[in-house]
Amino acid sequence: MTPVSLADALRHVDAPWSPRTVATVNDYDVRVFKAHGAFPRHTHPDTDELFLVLEGTLVLRLDDGDVSLTAGQIHVVRRGVPHQPYSEAGASGLLLEPSATVNTGDTPGALTAERRLL
Amino acid sequence: MTPVSLADALRHVDAPWSPRTVATVNDYDVRVFKAHGAFPRHTHPDTDELFLVLEGTLVLRLDDGDVSLTAGQIHVVRRGVPHQPYSEAGASGLLLEPSATVNTGDTPGALTAERRLL
Repeated sequence: MTPVSLADALRHVDAPWSPRTVATVNDYDVRVFKAHGAFPRHTHPDTDELFLVLEGTLVLRLDDGDVSLTAGQIHVVRRGVPHQPYSEAGASGLLLEPSATVNTGDTPGALTAERRLL
Repeated sequence: MTPVSLADALRHVDAPWSPRTVATVNDYDVRVFKAHGAFPRHTHPDTDELFLVLEGTLVLRLDDGDVSLTAGQIHVVRRGVPHQPYSEAGASGLLLEPSATVNTGDTPGALTAERRLL
């Protein structure tokens, strides 16, 4: 059996803010994503959301201050906490959240992405 | 706010097969672990379990064959599937599973570990 490679999976991500689901654990998704520039500020009222950065620097702009993540660093945005992901020079990472989670949360817009499997 | 660093978290793991919970996402745990040698074959009857390798090589011995994981590779063992983690030269990685999951599943023994936060 062949494992899933995160680096291979990221090659299928053709645009920033367009995540791909690479694995499921029960009813949770592991998604890889690329980031560049600013994503709309939004909230997930019903779920926590984990960010693990794989490459580059990703900033999570929170009302309490910024969290800056580089490779191998994790931050969990708790349910109900507004956040704006931002990457000046580009980044890639992994998300963990329930499979039903929509990337733009309570703020749908042009960057709202359908759930896409690898 | 300071993010969680997986490398820092692994420094708190003092023995193989003794995972530490570094983050929670709703009622799921993200745990870091070290592996060396063979862990008892076991099954989680009620949950999937995700392995992401960070360093070294981890083999998941399954009835259908071995899955060999190196850094950046993922495999999800589905609920009810017997598996034996094994690392000849040592490895470290990340687990994702419900917070109530016990490392030895249905086969408790000397290596059964309490849930430990970082």
